[in-house]
Amino acid sequence: MQRIPILQMGRTLLVTIQVDLQDQTALALQDDLANKIQTSAATGVLIDISAMEIVDSFIGRMLASISGIAKVLGATTVVVGMQPAVAITLVELGLSLDGVRTALNVERGLQLLKASDEEQFHDVDLD
Amino acid sequence: MQRIPILQMGRTLLVTIQVDLQDQTALALQDDLANKIQTSAATGVLIDISAMEIVDSFIGRMLASISGIAKVLGATTVVVGMQPAVAITLVELGLSLDGVRTALNVERGLQLLKASDEEQFHDVDLD
Repeated sequence: MQRIPILQMGRTLLVTIQVDLQDQTALALQDDLANKIQTSAATGVLIDISAMEIVDSFIGRMLASISGIAKVLGATTVVVGMQPAVAITLVELGLSLDGVRTALNVERGLQLLKASDEEQFHDVDLD
Repeated sequence: MQRIPILQMGRTLLVTIQVDLQDQTALALQDDLANKIQTSAATGVLIDISAMEIVDSFIGRMLASISGIAKVLGATTVVVGMQPAVAITLVELGLSLDGVRTALNVERGLQLLKASDEEQFHDVDLD
């Protein structure tokens, strides 16, 4: 079975999805990411889907699920690189990717993660 | 035909190779990278091969070729994430990846690119 590699850059994990996600690969990715967040103490997860030409409800649920798992482990997830055609199809299908943050590209995603990191630390300061 | 996405992070381009590289995909990657280096004025290219379980002479030549193309366009290439078994096989086969710089993982690769960037600017200062 194919496993999707998870790259660590500082406190951010980067995943590039290039293959058509099958159930098993998607489940393995969830497992691997959860483990990697724990071992690396990452606070951000970037998922690049620029190579994906179709995002259906299965993949939408998977992205929401990864985002939820990362959240309880203390990491923010941002999905980046969505193709315009995919965005159009998503809206037409009525899929809203609830609970999933998105950004145009990796650079903006990193900015978003940095901002959300500072926000959290700011919250801690107020306590 | 599958295209491998190229992610831009500042002046560095990141490529994660996850699929078995066929001739066409490899050629397309060379083309895409050359174009992207030009349009983005990138000074570094990171190629992550942590998902590859086999690196044969074809892939070795392709990595060397990408590295050469990037060099004439002013960018340094670092191949990162090689699995230990792949390194062992490469040496046993007598493939030395001539002209290809390598690093253990993405973070070390970024450090290497940063160091080589500073070196180049230092050279310019001396002129």
